[in-house]
Order: sequence, then structure tokens, then C-alpha cells
Amino acid sequence: MKDLILAGRKAERSVIEVNGVTIGGNEIILMGGPCAVESSLQMSRSAETVKEAGGKILRGGVFKPRTSPYSFQGLGLEGVNYLVQAAKEQGLLCVTEVIDARSLDLVIDKVDIIQIGARNMQNFELLKIVGRIDKPVILKRGLSATVEEWLLAAEYILSAGNSQVILCERGIRTYEPSTRNTLDLSAVGVAKELSHLPVIVDPSHAAGRRDLISSLSKAAVAAGSDGLLIETHPNPAEATSDGPQSLTPEQFIQLAQELGAVAASVKRSFTYGRHQPDTIESLRAQIDSVDQTILKKLADRMQIVRKLGDQKRLDHVKDSNRQKEIVQRLVNLATELELPAELVKKIYPLIFEFGVQSQIKNRLAQEKELDRTIYPLGSK
Amino acid sequence: MKDLILAGRKAERSVIEVNGVTIGGNEIILMGGPCAVESSLQMSRSAETVKEAGGKILRGGVFKPRTSPYSFQGLGLEGVNYLVQAAKEQGLLCVTEVIDARSLDLVIDKVDIIQIGARNMQNFELLKIVGRIDKPVILKRGLSATVEEWLLAAEYILSAGNSQVILCERGIRTYEPSTRNTLDLSAVGVAKELSHLPVIVDPSHAAGRRDLISSLSKAAVAAGSDGLLIETHPNPAEATSDGPQSLTPEQFIQLAQELGAVAASVKRSFTYGRHQPDTIESLRAQIDSVDQTILKKLADRMQIVRKLGDQKRLDHVKDSNRQKEIVQRLVNLATELELPAELVKKIYPLIFEFGVQSQIKNRLAQEKELDRTIYPLGSK
Amino acid sequence: MKDLILAGRKAERSVIEVNGVTIGGNEIILMGGPCAVESSLQMSRSAETVKEAGGKILRGGVFKPRTSPYSFQGLGLEGVNYLVQAAKEQGLLCVTEVIDARSLDLVIDKVDIIQIGARNMQNFELLKIVGRIDKPVILKRGLSATVEEWLLAAEYILSAGNSQVILCERGIRTYEPSTRNTLDLSAVGVAKELSHLPVIVDPSHAAGRRDLISSLSKAAVAAGSDGLLIETHPNPAEATSDGPQSLTPEQFIQLAQELGAVAASVKRSFTYGRHQPDTIESLRAQIDSVDQTILKKLADRMQIVRKLGDQKRLDHVKDSNRQKEIVQRLVNLATELELPAELVKKIYPLIFEFGVQSQIKNRLAQEKELDRTIYPLGSK
Amino acid sequence: MKDLILAGRKAERSVIEVNGVTIGGNEIILMGGPCAVESSLQMSRSAETVKEAGGKILRGGVFKPRTSPYSFQGLGLEGVNYLVQAAKEQGLLCVTEVIDARSLDLVIDKVDIIQIGARNMQNFELLKIVGRIDKPVILKRGLSATVEEWLLAAEYILSAGNSQVILCERGIRTYEPSTRNTLDLSAVGVAKELSHLPVIVDPSHAAGRRDLISSLSKAAVAAGSDGLLIETHPNPAEATSDGPQSLTPEQFIQLAQELGAVAASVKRSFTYGRHQPDTIESLRAQIDSVDQTILKKLADRMQIVRKLGDQKRLDHVKDSNRQKEIVQRLVNLATELELPAELVKKIYPLIFEFGVQSQIKNRLAQEKELDRTIYPLGSK
Repeated sequence: MKDLILAGRKAERSVIEVNGVTIGGNEIILMGGPCAVESSLQMSRSAETVKEAGGKILRGGVFKPRTSPYSFQGLGLEGVNYLVQAAKEQGLLCVTEVIDARSLDLVIDKVDIIQIGARNMQNFELLKIVGRIDKPVILKRGLSATVEEWLLAAEYILSAGNSQVILCERGIRTYEPSTRNTLDLSAVGVAKELSHLPVIVDPSHAAGRRDLISSLSKAAVAAGSDGLLIETHPNPAEATSDGPQSLTPEQFIQLAQELGAVAASVKRSFTYGRHQPDTIESLRAQIDSVDQTILKKLADRMQIVRKLGDQKRLDHVKDSNRQKEIVQRLVNLATELELPAELVKKIYPLIFEFGVQSQIKNRLAQEKELDRTIYPLGSK
Repeated sequence: MKDLILAGRKAERSVIEVNGVTIGGNEIILMGGPCAVESSLQMSRSAETVKEAGGKILRGGVFKPRTSPYSFQGLGLEGVNYLVQAAKEQGLLCVTEVIDARSLDLVIDKVDIIQIGARNMQNFELLKIVGRIDKPVILKRGLSATVEEWLLAAEYILSAGNSQVILCERGIRTYEPSTRNTLDLSAVGVAKELSHLPVIVDPSHAAGRRDLISSLSKAAVAAGSDGLLIETHPNPAEATSDGPQSLTPEQFIQLAQELGAVAASVKRSFTYGRHQPDTIESLRAQIDSVDQTILKKLADRMQIVRKLGDQKRLDHVKDSNRQKEIVQRLVNLATELELPAELVKKIYPLIFEFGVQSQIKNRLAQEKELDRTIYPLGSK
Repeated sequence: MKDLILAGRKAERSVIEVNGVTIGGNEIILMGGPCAVESSLQMSRSAETVKEAGGKILRGGVFKPRTSPYSFQGLGLEGVNYLVQAAKEQGLLCVTEVIDARSLDLVIDKVDIIQIGARNMQNFELLKIVGRIDKPVILKRGLSATVEEWLLAAEYILSAGNSQVILCERGIRTYEPSTRNTLDLSAVGVAKELSHLPVIVDPSHAAGRRDLISSLSKAAVAAGSDGLLIETHPNPAEATSDGPQSLTPEQFIQLAQELGAVAASVKRSFTYGRHQPDTIESLRAQIDSVDQTILKKLADRMQIVRKLGDQKRLDHVKDSNRQKEIVQRLVNLATELELPAELVKKIYPLIFEFGVQSQIKNRLAQEKELDRTIYPLGSK
Repeated sequence: MKDLILAGRKAERSVIEVNGVTIGGNEIILMGGPCAVESSLQMSRSAETVKEAGGKILRGGVFKPRTSPYSFQGLGLEGVNYLVQAAKEQGLLCVTEVIDARSLDLVIDKVDIIQIGARNMQNFELLKIVGRIDKPVILKRGLSATVEEWLLAAEYILSAGNSQVILCERGIRTYEPSTRNTLDLSAVGVAKELSHLPVIVDPSHAAGRRDLISSLSKAAVAAGSDGLLIETHPNPAEATSDGPQSLTPEQFIQLAQELGAVAASVKRSFTYGRHQPDTIESLRAQIDSVDQTILKKLADRMQIVRKLGDQKRLDHVKDSNRQKEIVQRLVNLATELELPAELVKKIYPLIFEFGVQSQIKNRLAQEKELDRTIYPLGSK
């Protein structure tokens, strides 16, 4: 695509740093909050939920582009203040959508990130305006935009001088009626193939129903998304807009708890939970968790050692050379890990010893069992 | 949906057992192979790749529904024999598409699973015919079928008497040109919400380009798919059809190696590799891997213990009650894990001891550093 | 498109002759009838409606490919007999859809034209089967088929030996919910550009609502369609399928009455009404209609003559040379039209005379008016 | 649709009057011109073409919303002047697209109609701005907007105070690649069913190829469109944008010549050609054309009269009562048409007389023929 002069693929992927949060790096960035800012209390609670979950950025619309002129159009400036205040209380960044020059002016000095909505993806005049600011811009894909058109919309912003563009896939319009739009996760890969810009995913607007958000969020991360923009509301049933697609606080937190494993499975990271200063209690809880893993691994080891024993002659279950070799390797590894080598030298002989005992017991038990099978009536 | 009498949601999800392979259970079932069967050698190699990767089912088309009457229409019966033979050699099951009653007759006694292609999803007469057989049927979603229409197509098969239907999402037709079709991963969740049938995903036909297959496969598993149907060819550049979307053997194996982690992250399982009988070498490799984890966890523990030390007065770094409590808990866990309690009792005192030493060293180092900061010229 | 060997454009467009009806010629062929054959009476009444309207072909489905297995699947052989009998009574041809080899066998010797439905457009085995028969085939465009795929489906039939393929556009699947499908009238032009085959349009399945059928039918004819396939039912409210899109008999006839003018406007023909042997009454009605036109044209002439008079000096309103010239030209034309020249020679002088009188009266009236304007108080 | 408070259907359709042109009345309004204004000469020539064709409104874009930031973005103010000047020279109105408040300010006092492009259909801030002006607004349907969303966008303009909204269908995004977009002519009927606003059609952007414009324009008129917005360029091959879909001047004029008949066929009007003050020559040409029709109709009458004669006994060919009745009816009609009743009374007896003679001659000829058939050898 010849016109992707600035948005086109480069040797290195772009990483956008904004007030301590890195978008496009290894960490999956979770952004959450309600569709529309409604009140101070609603935003405080939303911010608590996002923080609790390990989210970094609070979202909330104050200028709402609504299909009908008679739908709630957003709280405007008052809403921005609620958003900003709630984010501040929890140490979160915040993002809101702008819809024209005036709305941008009202929020530019208050929020950390600016969003361009799907309906404005080809509002080229607006793109040029946000191209002249010095804040990151989340650019949502238009409802029926091709990936190429989306990247060319990004090019408008980049070519106007703002290099901090974050692409956001949010579902495209298709014939399928069971979801509001059809989330196009292929677009994540295609956009990353064609461009160096970070790509995040908004499963909420795509699905339009909260029961799919968890599975689609995980799928988005597995597909290579750099972040998630998810709607959550303290009380979805009373949301002024998009209630049916908003997660409850509990669902949002539940999803976040499950997200770290998915991120890790594709070599990305996401850490659930408030990143509070460590307390004695929390550190002890961490130790307990580590100890559990150590024991599980010791049990696994013992089981493999038993299988190994099955394959060797009984008088060969102990193999001193192999043990020496293991200890030597582990001592080297311990040094690398800044673990006292002495600890390894002291505990591994114990581990070997119990392993050998276990092999022997196991073999004897098997032989007994064999005897019983051959001489079932105990006539031996 | 009132007409989903048999396909509609039930208390329990359906699990389809076919010759030792379970589709719809906890395990992610990997199916692979070329779009079209071309030769005995091609199928043998494909089967090797699938087996190597941990796949369970070999695919290969012998009756190809092609857009043009002048395109290669498949090898027919000769092709089935290549497919079946190759699957047998590697202990795999096999699946092939049927296009009418005649083609079904030719393969019914040879293959394990029957496939109905996207173009025939609403060939109701064919659905009724496969509804009368006693083999599992993979029912691909039509190119522009709604989820509801797809499930009603399944209902045709079920209501004709065959309860073994596996749904397969394979991309829908949209305006987006960068992929052949648009993979609709929301459909996995929607189909599972509306129906008890297993759902698998074919990312190959959806994407139409091999560079997206790996990320879409992982996304499919994260989204809840019960299996993957992926095209692979020993030499994609020479494939008679769908070369551009076929993975090379290396890519297929690479993907399989990465899939287990993603499956585990959503509490499913997938095991890469041939499931050979354990050898002494493989068991030793497993032990080495476990040992590495144990050491990493010991190092993590040591680091947390140091942080804990920072929060306590130097004379309190050792806390005997806490140590007793830990040992007691781990002894109980060991018993549960069938690990000798004695081992725990012997190694944890060592771990504690090295931990305390580490805390003390750390505190002394910090104090020294503090001194240096306060009396920078060493004048103390 | 390289594979359109037989379907691709040729020097001459194909014209399909079937038992006295020509499809693809100058005449727009109207086909009508219910979605599904329900009873003998329903078909008789439908046939009457179609005949009354000037239709040539009766449609009616007896093997219905229905989305749900529990929907009415058609009357089968019994239905064919109703269809054939009703068509025969009215001297119409008939068409019905086939869904597999068996259904084709049942109808092949009874109906005049075979239809392949949208859902079977890429049921290639069925295409090959109807490619081996010697009857015209209406090939409906698939719900999400490109024009190219549609023509390649036709190529399947042609390459199997049957040259009588009639393409039928019937709406494609889009995101728009206000119609069942979106009628793609561009496809008529594109298909005619790429292929020599006749193209007809089915607005009923496209719109899914009867209020749009009349305007879409006219649009189809204006866009170049060679015929129309329209659903009508004696009592749409009680139709077993597609009631909401079926025209009432009155609406069908009303549409047919309006269609001739549209056909003529694009140099095609369509004649409304039963083509009964002329009765004295019908001939007299025709004469009355012609007389009305003659009078309207005489009135138009008189008005133009008056305008002409405005531009000439009052003493020049009669221009004998021009009159002679006109008569001479019209006498020549009369001869061409097999109209007695004497008639012209006798009536035109009368027409001229009244024209001149009219001009004079008009001018005098204008002058009087002028006087009144200049001397408004009548003070002259 | 509850929110269509102002746009929703009313007892009467809206008619928009703008400087002597009526949009939404009986007349089909033709608008034409290039996609982008390029030069003074280009616009003069385009205006000539539009005028020549009978068009009323000149279009030309000066602020172009282009997919790529590096494509030609329009001549701005300079371009407006070319557009306005060219329209003025030919007595046409003019329309141009605005993209934001600034561009609106620049053109508001110069052009007659404002256009909102498809990409800005849901740029609600822009809709509110054009809702506050007192000029008609052409509101193009968004690329993937439903009819409902389109009408709600109109509601934004109406509710802001501007009642002069003209809807414009311009094709929607679908999977079909043979046209740029898919013209949705059903939308004309649906929009007219739901709303009282005039609806026009832009076939150029829909098709993206000039070979389909003529047939789609006719189809649009047949479908009920109130006008056409068609791209034409003096030299499409050198157009800066949309060349492939622009008609040449000859094609535009050709289309206009053919449009009147289609309009008339659906009881609408469109008059091809410059509407110059009538000259003696043009009036005489009109008379000649009317005379031709009169003669054709007289010939038709004579032919029907002969058929009627075939059905009557030879001595009954003259039927005085019927003649009196005809004359009476035509005298009444003449009075209605402001045609001298005396003319009818004088010429109809002549017409009857020649009719009777023709019947007699015909019958005698037939009998002679019959004789020849019965006594082929002339032996009578």
C-alpha cells in the first residue's frame, strides 16, 4: 500500500509511552469503564473496578455520537471532570472520545488519551486536528472500513504530526444478527503485518452482549492484541447506553483474573490486581503459593522417577554419575538465579534419596502384584 | 429458537467419541492435512506432520466442490485410499468431505468422520442423507449463513437420526478484502450458547493466507473452540488447491508446540508431539525440566523472603511459629500429593535457614548503603 | 474470467425458446405464482391471475428447501400435478425447483422449465445433473455469490451439455435489515456484460415484503432484465410460506398493467392481459382508447399552434406554403402506414382552419387583456 | 421508528423548492458534474453538458474527503468560484459537499444546495451545523448505514431547524467485487415508506464503472427516485478522481435523451434538452411530431376497425348508434381539453367513412382469398 508512508511496517513496532503506561510493549493493557459518564459515583466505582482488576486506563464517554438526536448525548465538560477525578483517585490514566474541535479543546488538557470513534474514522478534518496534538489517539476502525482504509485514516493523523496512534478493532458490519457487529480478529494480524502501530481490541461494541466478552477478550489477546478496551458499569441494568454489553464489576474482575494465563500463553504479560506496596501478609501469601508449586513439582519429579525406575533393573535404580551431573547443572543454574549453591547441594541429595526409596518400593509393590496375578489364590 | 429441538442447548454439552478420540471434551482436537488429496506420498508426509504435532485426525478432500467446472475436482476413490492408508500408518483418524449420495457411499466404510462443506450447508437433501448414517459429521458453516441457520442445518442431520454433529466455523463473507473470508469467532460462543454440540474452527479457509493461521488458531482456542481444522501440505507451493493458506509442515508443528499453553490458559488441554512410550532419555529430560522449575521457584521464594525481611526488624527475621505452621501445611499437602512427608520435614528447615541468612545479608547491605548515603565521605 | 468458456460473452445474446415462449428476446417475460404449491384450487386461481396479467409462465414450489427441518417441505409429486394442470388450463408454461436427482426425475417430463434455487447454486453435483437434461434451467444467484461465481455455476450446467440457462438475480445478503435481502440490480448489467445468457429478476425473495415489489419490478425491467419471477397467491395471508412477500391477485394484475409502459421506455415490450381472440367489445374499447389519444394530441397541437401564433404578426397567422408542405409529408406518411391519403387530405384542412381561428381568438384576447392592463379603469 | 419525529412519514410528501427548481415533485431532477472541480474550463464544459441534457443542478466537489491523505483534497475556495460561475453561465443551480464548519462557511453564500457525503453521514456535529442553515441539504447514505440510521441522521438536521433534507442513496458496502458498492434501490421505496423526504439516487459512486450508469439511472427512476446525481467529466480519462465512473458528455446527454420515456412510464416527467424560449422552428418541429403521432393513431384505429369488421356481418359494418355515441363522448372530451367541439364533429364523420370503406374492402379481399383457396384453379 503505497500511501502508508508513516503507518506502514517498520523494522521495529511502535511502543507508546503515556504517563508510565506502555502500549504496544509486552504487557497487555487493560482499559475499562462505562460507555457514557453518568455521575461522579458511577465513575468512582468504575475506576475502583478497573484498578482492582489490574487495568491501567479508565474510559468514559462524555460526548456521545448517538444514532438518534433524541438519545442521551453525554455530560460534556461536567462528565470529563468526573472521569478525570475518578482516574486520579485510583492512579489510572483516562481516555475519552472527541467528536469535533470544540470537544477536543474541552478535554485536551485533562485526559491522557484521545479516542476517535468508529463513526468518525473517516472524518478526515477531525483526524487532521488530532494529528496536531501531542497526546496518544485511539483510532477505532469504522463499521465498514477495510483494514487499508483504517491504516490510511491513521496516516492522516501521523502525517499531521502526531505519531502516537493506537489502532482499535471493534467489530465490523455483517449480515449476522446474533451479535451487534462481527469482531474481526484477523484484522489484528493484518494490521500488525501492514503497520508498526499498536493494535487493541474492543470486544464490547463488537459483541453487543456481555456473555461473549470474556471469551472474545481472551481470543483477542491470543490473536496478538496489545490491549483490551472493555465496557464495565457498576450497574449495567441502569446504564444510559450500552447496558447489555457492559460487564458487571464482578465479571470484569473475573475476566482480569483469567487474562494473565492467556497472555502468558502467547508470551505476553498481564498482572491481575491492585499493585499495592507489598505487605507482610501479601508477601507471606506469595510464599505460600510458591511453596505449593514447589511441592507439586517435587511430587511430579517423584512420579517420573518412579516411571524411570520401572525401566531399569532393580539393582541399577541408583545412578551416582547422573546424580552428580544433575547437581552440577543445578548449582550452575542456582548461581545464575542468585540462589545459594549450598542450598542445592544440601537438598538434592535428600531428593535423590527419597526418589530411590520410592523406586524400590514401587518395584517391590509391582512384583507383589505380579505374584498375585500369577498365583491368584495365594498358593505360592 | 423454537425449531432447535435436538440441536438446542441442554444441561450437558455433547461429547462425540470416535475410535478413541473425544471431540467436545477437555482436550483440544487438532485436525490437519491438505485441502485436496493428491498422491500417496503427499498424504503419508501430511500424516507424519499431523502425528508429529500431536494431531489426532487427518483431513484430505477427494471430492472437491470447486467454483469452476474446469478446476481440479479431486481424485475420488483413489484419493480416499491414499487418505485412509496414510492415517492408518500413523494411527490417526481421517475425515473427508462428501458432496452427494454417491460420494458418501464410496467413503462411508473407509473414513472415520464425514464432512459437509460450507457450500452444501443448506443442501438439505444431503443433510438428510448424512443424518441416516452412523458416523460423526463435521458441518461447516455456510459462507453467509447465520448461526441460527447453521444450527437448523445441524437439526436436519440430528432429526434424521444422527446425533454426532460437530459444528465448524470457517469464516463468513464480508466486504473486507485482506482475508478470503472473515473468521467469526463470536460464532463459537453464540453456537455454544444456543446448542450443546461441539464447535471447532477452520482458520485456513477463513484467512486464506498462512501468515494468520497461528494467531487465529490460538484465538479460536481462547474463544472456546473444541478443536482446529488446519490445512497443511508437504509443499504448499505445489498444492493443487489452497496452497497460499496451507501451513508448511514446520509451521504446523511450530503452531502445535505453542498450542498447549494457550489451551491450558483456558483450562483445556492439548499435548504436542507423538505420544511415544516413555524412554529413559525422555523421562530424564522431564526430570531436568522439573528440576529447573523447582530451582526457579526456590529463587522466587528467596526473593520474596528478602522483601519480607525488609519489613521486619532485624531481630525478628526468624519467626519460628510461622515456620512450624508452614511445615505443617506442606506436610498435609505432601500427603495429598503422595510425596513423602519426611522429605518436606528435611528440606524445609534448610530452605528456611538459607532464607534467614539471605534476609540478614540483605539488611546489612542496605544499612551499609544507607551509611554511605548519610556519610558519603566515609567520615563516620 | 478465463473459465467462462461457454457462459462468457458472445457476439449474440442467447435467446431461449421454450414451447412458444421466448426468453431473452425483446419481450419481457412475466412469471408468477405462489412460493409453494398448496392445492389444486390455489394453483388454478394463481394460473388465472398470471394469465389475466399477461404472464407466460406459472411457478410453484413442490420440493421446498426450508431452513428448518420442521417447516413445510412441499407437496412433492401431488403438487407437481396441481401445477401442471393449472398451467395447462390457462395455456401457460410452468417451472418448479428441483433439489436433487430424485426430485428432478419426478418432474422432468411434466414441467417446461427447471429451477435451481439460491441455496443450491453451488451444489455442483446437482448442476451437473441438470446439465445433462434438455430443458431450460433458471439458475438463481446464491445468497452471497459473486456474479463471477454465479456465471461459473452456469458454466457447470453449460459444460455438461445443457445450453439453456436463464440467470435469476434474487437479492444478496447484506447488513440492511429493512428488506429480507438486498436486490442487486447492478448484477443484471454485470451479468449481461460478462455473459450472453438471459437474466431475469425475482424481486419477491429479495424484498421479502410486498409493498416494494411493484417499484422493484419496474426498476428491474429498466435495468435490463429479460423477465420477472414474482410471487402471487390467491390469499397471501394464508400462504404456507412467503406470504408477506406475495402479491394479491389484484396487485399482480395492477403491476402487469403498469409494466408495458416501463418496458416500452427501454425499447422492450410487455403486453398486459389475456391474449384472447378479439371480441367486438374489446376492439371497441381499443378504438375508444385510440380516439382519446387522438383528441389529446389534437389539443396539444392546437396549443402549440397558439404559441406559434403569438410569435407571428396577426396577418401572417395563416401560412399556406407551410400547410401544403405538412399535408404532403403526412400524405407520404399515410401511405407508409397504409392509411388512406384521402383521409389526410380531407381532415388536415379542417385542423388548419380551426388552428387559425384559435390563433386569432387568442391574439385578440391578449390584446384586450393588454388594454385592460394599460387602461385599468376601462377609461379607454 | 419512534425517533423519526420530523423525518417520519406524513400525509403529504415534502417538496423542496430552491431557486425555481422543485425537488420531490413530479419532475425527475437531473444533477450532474464532475467528482472534483479541477478548473474553470472543466466546469464550464460540464455545465454545458448538464444544461444540454436538461439537467437543473451542477455538482462539483471542492473539499474532497479522500481515503488517503496524499490524494488530491480539492481546490477549496477557488474551486467553488469555478463551480458557481459555470452554473451561472448556464442558468443552473449548484451543489457542493462540505466537510466541516469552516468549509460550510466558505460556500454557504455561494452555492444553492449543500451536500453531506457518505463518510460524514454520522458526523453528528456536522449534521447539527447544517441543521442550522437555510439551504437544502443532500444527505448521502453512509457506506454501511441502515435506512433507519440514514433517516435518523436526517432527523439530526431537521431537529436542528432545517427542514430541507434530500436523501441520496449511493450504494452500500457488500462482498460483491464487480461494482464499487452495491446500489440498493429497495432503499428508495423503504425510505419513502418511512419518511416524507425526497429521495434521489447517485448511481455513479454505487457502480464505480460508467457502463452501468445508464441502466441503473433508469432503474432508479423506475424505482421511484425523485432525481439523479450523476458524475460526468469533459474528459474522464484525465479526471483527478473517479474517472472510471464518470460519463463522457456524450454518454450523459444520451442518457438524458432516454430518461424522459422512463420517467413517463412511471407517471413522472423529465424533459431532455435546453429549455430555450420557443422559436417558430421549435414549435413547428413540435407540431410535426404531434402530427406524426396523430397519423399513427389514425392508422392504428383503421386497423382495429378492420378487425372489428371481420366479426360483423357485411351489411352491419356501419353502426350509426355507435358512431353517435362516440362523437358525443369525444365532444365532451374536447370541451374538457379546450378543443373546439366543431372540429370533432367535422372530422369524425370522415374518419368513420374511411373506416367503413376499409372494412368493406377488407372483407371483399378476404372473400376473394377464400374463393381462391376453395377453387384454387380458378375454375369457379
